[in-house]
Amino acid sequence: MSDVSANLEPFSTLRWSVDGLIPAIVQDADGGDVLMMAWMDRAALVRTLETGLTHFYSRSRQSSWKKGETSGHVQRVESIRVDCDGDVLLVKARQTGGACHEGYRSCFFRELDSQGKLTIVAERVFIPETVYSAKETKSRE
Amino acid sequence: MSDVSANLEPFSTLRWSVDGLIPAIVQDADGGDVLMMAWMDRAALVRTLETGLTHFYSRSRQSSWKKGETSGHVQRVESIRVDCDGDVLLVKARQTGGACHEGYRSCFFRELDSQGKLTIVAERVFIPETVYSAKETKSRE
Repeated sequence: MSDVSANLEPFSTLRWSVDGLIPAIVQDADGGDVLMMAWMDRAALVRTLETGLTHFYSRSRQSSWKKGETSGHVQRVESIRVDCDGDVLLVKARQTGGACHEGYRSCFFRELDSQGKLTIVAERVFIPETVYSAKETKSRE
Repeated sequence: MSDVSANLEPFSTLRWSVDGLIPAIVQDADGGDVLMMAWMDRAALVRTLETGLTHFYSRSRQSSWKKGETSGHVQRVESIRVDCDGDVLLVKARQTGGACHEGYRSCFFRELDSQGKLTIVAERVFIPETVYSAKETKSRE
């Protein structure tokens, strides 16, 4: 294995799922908090690299979407890393507003205890109803 | 939705994949680096909570395994968070040695550029051959 690998076909080093997707962890470039995990298809990854703003794949809509399209809470990409198996992406990004459609900075706003109980351990940074319509809130941005 | 949810069946608030798995992101409790992502089944999550050491599910072995069993590079859990959809875990842990079977502290040791080229951007913290046997290195711990 060489230290640097280049391929004629871009992203051929990545291992996509059978559905053609790859999980992308988004980490706050400012504070280091993990903000969310979502899935990218090839089109979403290409759009992310082209625009410098994160795009993901929506299973329900069966298409790529731009994070922050409705809310303005975009993620400006600083870097993208790939794990040892080539099947997970780590995107460092600068988050405008909150990453979570429920109004939190990070989607990981609940802590799990040993009994399986969840407790909210963060404060909202925006009110979802002021950002999304009722329908959009449910469909999750 | 209440702020605190408890269920008679532990982890019923989690959304497992059709295979009964959930992705678990492991973040370094010390520096905040994202170390790896792997999958847990219910048994791995229970063992993780019981022992305070991360356990994951191996698709190839079809069983749970303890991270660091061979290498000693265990991960001591500080907290486990759950995302808004209940289908991703974020484990903050103290990492002994390196998380990556290729000898790096983090599995995300390669950066992706816009052409799809990967460049190694980290230094190894251990030599895999000194920690794993050849067979074990290939099967990945």
